[in-house]
Amino acid sequence: MNSPEPRFLRACRRQPVDRTPVWFMRQAGRYMPAYRQLRKKYGLLEICRTPELALQVTLQPIEAFELDAAIVFADILLPLVPMGFDLSFAKGVGPQIANPVRAIDDVQRLRSFDPAQELAPTLEAIKLLRSALPASTPLIGFAGGPFTLACYMIEGGASRNYERAKSLMYTQPSAWWALMDLVTSMTQAYLLAQIEAGAQAVQLFDSWAGALSPTDYQRFVQPYSQRVLQAVAETGAPSLHFGTNSATLLELMAEAGGDAIGVDWRVELDRAWQTIGYDRAIQGNLDPSVLFGSDDEIQAQTRRILDQAGGRPGHIFNLGHGILPGTPMTAVSLVVDAVHSYQPVGQAEHG
Amino acid sequence: MNSPEPRFLRACRRQPVDRTPVWFMRQAGRYMPAYRQLRKKYGLLEICRTPELALQVTLQPIEAFELDAAIVFADILLPLVPMGFDLSFAKGVGPQIANPVRAIDDVQRLRSFDPAQELAPTLEAIKLLRSALPASTPLIGFAGGPFTLACYMIEGGASRNYERAKSLMYTQPSAWWALMDLVTSMTQAYLLAQIEAGAQAVQLFDSWAGALSPTDYQRFVQPYSQRVLQAVAETGAPSLHFGTNSATLLELMAEAGGDAIGVDWRVELDRAWQTIGYDRAIQGNLDPSVLFGSDDEIQAQTRRILDQAGGRPGHIFNLGHGILPGTPMTAVSLVVDAVHSYQPVGQAEHG
Repeated sequence: MNSPEPRFLRACRRQPVDRTPVWFMRQAGRYMPAYRQLRKKYGLLEICRTPELALQVTLQPIEAFELDAAIVFADILLPLVPMGFDLSFAKGVGPQIANPVRAIDDVQRLRSFDPAQELAPTLEAIKLLRSALPASTPLIGFAGGPFTLACYMIEGGASRNYERAKSLMYTQPSAWWALMDLVTSMTQAYLLAQIEAGAQAVQLFDSWAGALSPTDYQRFVQPYSQRVLQAVAETGAPSLHFGTNSATLLELMAEAGGDAIGVDWRVELDRAWQTIGYDRAIQGNLDPSVLFGSDDEIQAQTRRILDQAGGRPGHIFNLGHGILPGTPMTAVSLVVDAVHSYQPVGQAEHG
Repeated sequence: MNSPEPRFLRACRRQPVDRTPVWFMRQAGRYMPAYRQLRKKYGLLEICRTPELALQVTLQPIEAFELDAAIVFADILLPLVPMGFDLSFAKGVGPQIANPVRAIDDVQRLRSFDPAQELAPTLEAIKLLRSALPASTPLIGFAGGPFTLACYMIEGGASRNYERAKSLMYTQPSAWWALMDLVTSMTQAYLLAQIEAGAQAVQLFDSWAGALSPTDYQRFVQPYSQRVLQAVAETGAPSLHFGTNSATLLELMAEAGGDAIGVDWRVELDRAWQTIGYDRAIQGNLDPSVLFGSDDEIQAQTRRILDQAGGRPGHIFNLGHGILPGTPMTAVSLVVDAVHSYQPVGQAEHG
């Protein structure tokens, strides 16, 4: 089958493909020697803010592996800086926010901003990437999901139980709604700007939404994700809606939107797809830890997931979360090869 | 209804009760001023190893709240010391193991031991507690689940992704099986010794099992949990089988065993019970973070869970995980009162 449109975009729209497309969350990053080399000279924020460096890092995995999509190198927390957050990345600690939100006053202090102005380097990197990438490799833009971003803003960094964020929800709901409203408008504007700059699909990473009960997700998050994804849908660019620990939220996440729903390995892909509904594409879902396994294990688990997808159009192969630091490059290659050489059982003539 | 047997034990066996029993994981601990006071004088391991102190801490929440069960104060990692692990609790870091398992040689080095000898203080605390507790307050014993204990042994402490443990599974399965075999025999002997000492029910805390895909749980963990829970079942004492992030493992966990299955807040209680099957009791499942919420929020979420239980016999109210440090004592009281005063909708005459 020769298709004018890349197989990743076709799969997002549940159109038939010659082989299952594959890309990886955090496919550019610490596990790559080329990236670590560059990080000796430049900080994370410096790379994100220098279009030529962001371009270079984005292309590293594209050059190393036969991937079906590129994702612009950026950080979900970049938009927090123009909003007024004092963000830094301390070595070994991860992101730290010196002035987190703890009450309605803190929310009122936050600024709205124009992404074209304040997030220009990422948009510029997207433009450069569209010229640099082959036509067969579409470019994905992305943003953090509203719950995940709000958690960072409230907790001031990574958190085990998100009790500060949840406490704000439960005790100062008007502060929560105000914050979510601001985050939603910002995220929407940022994703639309990325699409305008040339991103051919966008992913909403609500990685932490799975910390919520379904009832709380529905009350406190779903309406906001829905607003963002609705606005993206109107552009015609496909969207991917991703969370972890989200097995019990899949129906609600699908209801909120997304052409494809990203799922982690805690749920079997066939069950997840049934829950989400076959009118959506699905992305996932190999446990990133499997890439520390033997070659046989990696290949067997990759094939199991492809078997579960059952050759239906609309499966995008990915891990269930980002590639872990320390992952061997050879393991990444092995997964890509296993996906691309896969022949569905009894469907050798398929495609 | 006046029952000769305490309502917690009746609920474990799905017998009718006058009101839903309630206890809390980590009901003794840092959130209680009385506990923090004692910790100024004694270390965690010192308390666990001194029966009179373990007794005192176990009774603190029983004296403060109208709880339906006590749980002996101990730590799931205590059995690791007689096995040969060099365990310490550093302030603010949590448990640290200086000599973790990384290969088959490390497993072969581990010792089997007699709990009656090496874990005597916990067994002695159980004996003392049975005399100290009123007949209406049964005593729960416990142990860590095989996956959770193996993770600690391999990772050497808490972990975000358990990649060392999973890597051992995937690359050195014979080392994994050998370790699980040892952990299982030890856990089985330890729980039987607790029951013999007077524990009237036991809980298996496989808190981290939810990090695994259902396929991997079934391959690498389920047979071992099954062995432990089968041995407990033969004593006649009810068992509770608990995990977090376990929405997709519930069928497999129930298959492994447990008179009651403990579930976290990520799954709605009614759906969870349906999945587990009504031939089992269910324990849970309020999000511990809700206890940082307003009184209205706490009461509404407690009632929602009781509504979902639908007045069926076999619901034990609990949080979906342990009480968080910093939880207000008043919030704990509020939940206990809300559970005990609950009247099922349209069943005011029930019981």
